[in-house]
Amino acid sequence: MDFAFDARTEQLREQLLEFMDSHIYPAEPVFQQQIAERSDPWTAPPIVEELKAEARKRGLWNFFLPGEHGAGLTNLQYAPLAEITGRSPHLAPVALNCAAPDTGNMEVLAMFGNEAQRKQWLRPLLDGEIRSAFAMTEPEVASSDARNIATSIRREGDQYVINGRKWYISGAMSPDCAIFIVMGKTDPEAEPHRQQSMILVPRETPGLTVERGMHVFGYTDGDHGGHAEVRFEDVRVPVDNLLAEEGSGFAIAQARLGPGRIHHCMRAIGMAERAVAALCRRTLTRETFGKPIAEAGVVQDWIAESRVRIEQLRLLVLKTAWLMDTVGNRGAHTEIQAIKIATPRDVEWILDKAIQAHGAGGVSQDFPLAELWAAARMLRLADGPDEVHKRSLAHRELKKYRAEAAR
Amino acid sequence: MDFAFDARTEQLREQLLEFMDSHIYPAEPVFQQQIAERSDPWTAPPIVEELKAEARKRGLWNFFLPGEHGAGLTNLQYAPLAEITGRSPHLAPVALNCAAPDTGNMEVLAMFGNEAQRKQWLRPLLDGEIRSAFAMTEPEVASSDARNIATSIRREGDQYVINGRKWYISGAMSPDCAIFIVMGKTDPEAEPHRQQSMILVPRETPGLTVERGMHVFGYTDGDHGGHAEVRFEDVRVPVDNLLAEEGSGFAIAQARLGPGRIHHCMRAIGMAERAVAALCRRTLTRETFGKPIAEAGVVQDWIAESRVRIEQLRLLVLKTAWLMDTVGNRGAHTEIQAIKIATPRDVEWILDKAIQAHGAGGVSQDFPLAELWAAARMLRLADGPDEVHKRSLAHRELKKYRAEAAR
Amino acid sequence: MDFAFDARTEQLREQLLEFMDSHIYPAEPVFQQQIAERSDPWTAPPIVEELKAEARKRGLWNFFLPGEHGAGLTNLQYAPLAEITGRSPHLAPVALNCAAPDTGNMEVLAMFGNEAQRKQWLRPLLDGEIRSAFAMTEPEVASSDARNIATSIRREGDQYVINGRKWYISGAMSPDCAIFIVMGKTDPEAEPHRQQSMILVPRETPGLTVERGMHVFGYTDGDHGGHAEVRFEDVRVPVDNLLAEEGSGFAIAQARLGPGRIHHCMRAIGMAERAVAALCRRTLTRETFGKPIAEAGVVQDWIAESRVRIEQLRLLVLKTAWLMDTVGNRGAHTEIQAIKIATPRDVEWILDKAIQAHGAGGVSQDFPLAELWAAARMLRLADGPDEVHKRSLAHRELKKYRAEAAR
Amino acid sequence: MDFAFDARTEQLREQLLEFMDSHIYPAEPVFQQQIAERSDPWTAPPIVEELKAEARKRGLWNFFLPGEHGAGLTNLQYAPLAEITGRSPHLAPVALNCAAPDTGNMEVLAMFGNEAQRKQWLRPLLDGEIRSAFAMTEPEVASSDARNIATSIRREGDQYVINGRKWYISGAMSPDCAIFIVMGKTDPEAEPHRQQSMILVPRETPGLTVERGMHVFGYTDGDHGGHAEVRFEDVRVPVDNLLAEEGSGFAIAQARLGPGRIHHCMRAIGMAERAVAALCRRTLTRETFGKPIAEAGVVQDWIAESRVRIEQLRLLVLKTAWLMDTVGNRGAHTEIQAIKIATPRDVEWILDKAIQAHGAGGVSQDFPLAELWAAARMLRLADGPDEVHKRSLAHRELKKYRAEAAR
Repeated sequence: MDFAFDARTEQLREQLLEFMDSHIYPAEPVFQQQIAERSDPWTAPPIVEELKAEARKRGLWNFFLPGEHGAGLTNLQYAPLAEITGRSPHLAPVALNCAAPDTGNMEVLAMFGNEAQRKQWLRPLLDGEIRSAFAMTEPEVASSDARNIATSIRREGDQYVINGRKWYISGAMSPDCAIFIVMGKTDPEAEPHRQQSMILVPRETPGLTVERGMHVFGYTDGDHGGHAEVRFEDVRVPVDNLLAEEGSGFAIAQARLGPGRIHHCMRAIGMAERAVAALCRRTLTRETFGKPIAEAGVVQDWIAESRVRIEQLRLLVLKTAWLMDTVGNRGAHTEIQAIKIATPRDVEWILDKAIQAHGAGGVSQDFPLAELWAAARMLRLADGPDEVHKRSLAHRELKKYRAEAAR
Repeated sequence: MDFAFDARTEQLREQLLEFMDSHIYPAEPVFQQQIAERSDPWTAPPIVEELKAEARKRGLWNFFLPGEHGAGLTNLQYAPLAEITGRSPHLAPVALNCAAPDTGNMEVLAMFGNEAQRKQWLRPLLDGEIRSAFAMTEPEVASSDARNIATSIRREGDQYVINGRKWYISGAMSPDCAIFIVMGKTDPEAEPHRQQSMILVPRETPGLTVERGMHVFGYTDGDHGGHAEVRFEDVRVPVDNLLAEEGSGFAIAQARLGPGRIHHCMRAIGMAERAVAALCRRTLTRETFGKPIAEAGVVQDWIAESRVRIEQLRLLVLKTAWLMDTVGNRGAHTEIQAIKIATPRDVEWILDKAIQAHGAGGVSQDFPLAELWAAARMLRLADGPDEVHKRSLAHRELKKYRAEAAR
Repeated sequence: MDFAFDARTEQLREQLLEFMDSHIYPAEPVFQQQIAERSDPWTAPPIVEELKAEARKRGLWNFFLPGEHGAGLTNLQYAPLAEITGRSPHLAPVALNCAAPDTGNMEVLAMFGNEAQRKQWLRPLLDGEIRSAFAMTEPEVASSDARNIATSIRREGDQYVINGRKWYISGAMSPDCAIFIVMGKTDPEAEPHRQQSMILVPRETPGLTVERGMHVFGYTDGDHGGHAEVRFEDVRVPVDNLLAEEGSGFAIAQARLGPGRIHHCMRAIGMAERAVAALCRRTLTRETFGKPIAEAGVVQDWIAESRVRIEQLRLLVLKTAWLMDTVGNRGAHTEIQAIKIATPRDVEWILDKAIQAHGAGGVSQDFPLAELWAAARMLRLADGPDEVHKRSLAHRELKKYRAEAAR
Repeated sequence: MDFAFDARTEQLREQLLEFMDSHIYPAEPVFQQQIAERSDPWTAPPIVEELKAEARKRGLWNFFLPGEHGAGLTNLQYAPLAEITGRSPHLAPVALNCAAPDTGNMEVLAMFGNEAQRKQWLRPLLDGEIRSAFAMTEPEVASSDARNIATSIRREGDQYVINGRKWYISGAMSPDCAIFIVMGKTDPEAEPHRQQSMILVPRETPGLTVERGMHVFGYTDGDHGGHAEVRFEDVRVPVDNLLAEEGSGFAIAQARLGPGRIHHCMRAIGMAERAVAALCRRTLTRETFGKPIAEAGVVQDWIAESRVRIEQLRLLVLKTAWLMDTVGNRGAHTEIQAIKIATPRDVEWILDKAIQAHGAGGVSQDFPLAELWAAARMLRLADGPDEVHKRSLAHRELKKYRAEAAR
């Protein structure tokens, strides 16, 4: 057992921290300014492309993707880097071409796409030239039970015909979003986990209508292409657009969610670190009742709690990354659920305290805290609510004792 | 001791509940539609004036104001009515001319305004013809310690000259907001609680600039005139615009905050009731894992907790209202702080659970829950953060034992 | 609505407070001394009888029992008196002949006993001459689902034959405990709520064996007769010993639990008040890091929280008492469950903080806090765990929306 | 970074797990039986010596002590072993000669004792022939601020004269406890951290009176020699009995506390694992409302939460052990405080849920849960309350930003 980062991780951390200081943090006010002035509410401001170019030049690119197509890092090596990008979550992940949902989509294409699919869609995604969407959640059903997904994918000759309605499809409001990975039912009569398939739908396909941007506590996340509601009406694509085979949708979704969850958690810890720094800085420089707020016992309690919780979250995420590297995503199932349960709520708690210490400023657009909070809160729902993960985790724990109890 | 409402309260509750069913709830989708279509982001949509006219016709008007100027209700009589309006907080309070910050401003004018001030500003406010703002919080200082307020109000001959910067001035973005009550320092050398004064500043006064709308978790609250940042640069008003006398600003603020806090808490309880109803309705009609979500033990735990907490909050608020009626606002100080501490956080908790049960819909613009949550969260900061109130409440509790401990 | 106590309550509160100061608090060290010196671990020390005599002389007696047999107080009148006795829970309730489980047993006898039963058992209980036990909980089943109760009560001619095992039968270790009210199954084939009956079993009946005292976190509660495990082996009693009729056991249990729960909650609030006083006193007189612990922000947070929670609990309990008086115990079902859920956990929280502020002393035998804590913790289990009450409360809340949801 | 145990750890874990199964768990009922039957409430029952002999024979001995005197394990190697012993905390640690307070005392003697002291006291302790006590906490002062310690150690010629009162001196009620390490003031005029010294006081020294056993929530911990109140009245020992030098008491205490805290935390995690197993087993085998309690959503929530928290605690403790091994106890200061804050409260929470699931049995003497709970609760106080550690941890966190804030 060894808790030190390996040499490559240390080196990349150093390079990335330098990039954060020299480029990312200075770009934040520029980004805000450009956001305020842009005409299209659903595109990234120009500074983002500049940052991407600079990051790629420095070799800070596609860290998230293991294997030949990406930077070749293990999950354990990527984890501390992803955390650092989470300190500036609107700029750093996208600058390094490590932003969701593209990361998950690239993984899917790398793992399940055939050569033609990879050439057409994975290549430009790896180059940061286009963006992509993952269309799973539906407004009409509790999508946390994936078997509820109702969009139909019906084969007609050489085509699949897609009908359904999706929402909270992140990135899809952006004109740069060129391709949708759509989950739907190819066979409602199959056994539950074999009913669903995934299929590639180019944005311009007739019948696909991006209707509106959904909000997250008043935020549109427009710079990242928002969260769209999308209608599929008799959308026809060639059968070659299917990913893997019919009935593999559930398995692909599972394969995609593991890394997706750990990436979210890594970045969320970076957000929490940013919150603690803001909490300390603010309370050291404001006074009430004749002394800095930082001297208030309750504020110190928040700071200590935040530090303790962050240390615990980080270790759990790192251990999970190590497990994914050593025994695979399935072997790390319990731990992936554990980080998904623990991280969003603790990060939300930490952000809440930082907000409280900032007074009205904390909920305002002048500090990043409220928007980060909304992102953390959303994580308690995204990829299934905490409650579903806890239920599943408890089932596995109980299983250890079932045989004995039956005796 | 008697926990039944009196006859007048019962009658008004009935009338109000009927009005909610016949006019307010049906107006909600119209309101949303008009909001989406309006050109000015800072005005109330037309449906609001229609509701005001109808409410006034029915005698559902100015309930909040005790005494001759208002409806003549006690706090205890108003409390359950205010709670009902909280179930539709964007429409019902304003329809009944019971919306903050006008309510507090009318109280201030009724209590501390001279006849001329009351004629010029209180009359049109009571008639719902203009709106008003209360300019206290400043961006540069921790305003929870009122002694930090730094805006200067300097006398020059027959005028006061005002310089300073305020933010989160609710309602001030609206063109209907005609008058500002501004708090600032007239005498920085006086003893701490006598340094501040309050003064009336008409919107059109030169030097007063409404700069921008501040956000609350991404929401602008535009239909209520938003929350403005306002600059005062050599703003000159006649000395007659002073409220009461120099040095009475702190006392006026205190007098205003008591009723303001209880009104906020009453409405927040109504918000919580709405959340519980939404939580029950949603979970009864969605299924996961083969049964309605409402049958999940964790969801039932949320429902039970919500009911228990609401009952406790309501009783504490009603007792506080009764104390304000019987021993005055000062005598009810501990209880006013207690409701300010307990209500926002419990209502926030309940809204969080309702959101969670709605999945992505919960954080969206399609349900009122996320926006209500932001309002409840803001209440943990508004009029001083919880921590300041707890500190003060603890000091009073400790005082009971100090003499004994000194022995 | 009126939050003031009525005249009789005020007068009794005054008398009782005087008695607490003059007799109960001074008796506490004597009680501890006598406990330490007694030879029989299951009897009350002599000071208890002295206090009973004094209380009865002063008319502070049987407050708990409404109607002709008791003091004739309403629940609303008794509530604030019971709370006061909770400040010294080992002495005050028993001194006033208002201690569980005798109170509940007297209620059962008053409501369901026939004249002979009342004469033989209710009379000496009202006079404080004997004590009694209520034998419901069983070690082998989850007794929170009363249908699980497995003790058999089988009729044989003019007798009932009882077989089974009970535990946590409070008071039964005491030699003064003369009578057991036993719940068991008379008809396992009846519909679930008609299977159980209650029967009177005198202590000396052959076959009844009091086996051992059960502990509560290391405490035996010996001064109150402990919590016994009791074996019933072919215990025979005359058929006249049945309470009410066969099959009415569940209904009697329900009737008994309502008042029992509210009495427990009232006293628990008194325990919380004692804890707050101890918390303030201790922290005002000890120093760390150069100032009294009471000046630590975290401690002040505890004090404020405690005050807020106590006020909320008390109001909920008083409202529940009022409902029981006005619409009956069934009409107050939701509120009775609400206080059972809210009170023990909040009182436990408050006691935990008082303990923490006392350092090692807090967990010791030198302060009453740890033992009070154990009593509060036990309340989260007694008469059914919180979770069962929450489930039931949620079912009633959901019922309001079921018809609508079915549409 | 690597989360796998090394080979030696794996091998020792295997051996220890085998010993737990073959000897420790089977000894538990024997131990309970012997406890119930013993005449001396302050001695360990005979089974303990048998277990010690067997463990030593198997080489499962003195794991806790690094370096030449002990088993030579690193903290990181010992941690998972200590955790396993925590599953049976009354038997396993003492069987392996790894029980507090002897462990800490042996560390002190190994680090600070001179050769004579080591020979006289360390040797028999390492052999498990005697036991020892650490006399620091005092009843009259808040001992969490070590500067408050008031016992005087005054030099008179070749002797030190000790006067003072200590309590919660664990183990000291046992007749096997042969030696006390006593902390007291040698120089009240020195700077705060140089006032205290540590001195060895043999049990039989005149003037040393072991007065009574202090309780922890009703438990006496008699099998471990209890927690004594001890009076020192003109106790005289030779100057050679001083540990290290005058004024080094604070430094010795600090050196002792680091390992002591991590050992406590390791064992506490083992207690939590035992609680989860009990929670699962119990709820799988009891029914309410027609199905096993384990199927209740709320219970599954407890199980999942427990698993997540345990994983987080364990990782934080292991990382701390690794830091202590690699950068020393001072370098691991933040992490040592972090585990001291996080572990007791989470373990307490887990035990509370296991208790709740056991109904009345949970608080009884028939299951180990309530007693384990009391031990976990005590840990929130022992070696300084959580609040003191949080305060200190926050100070270090704030320090990072102080220079910047001062600019």
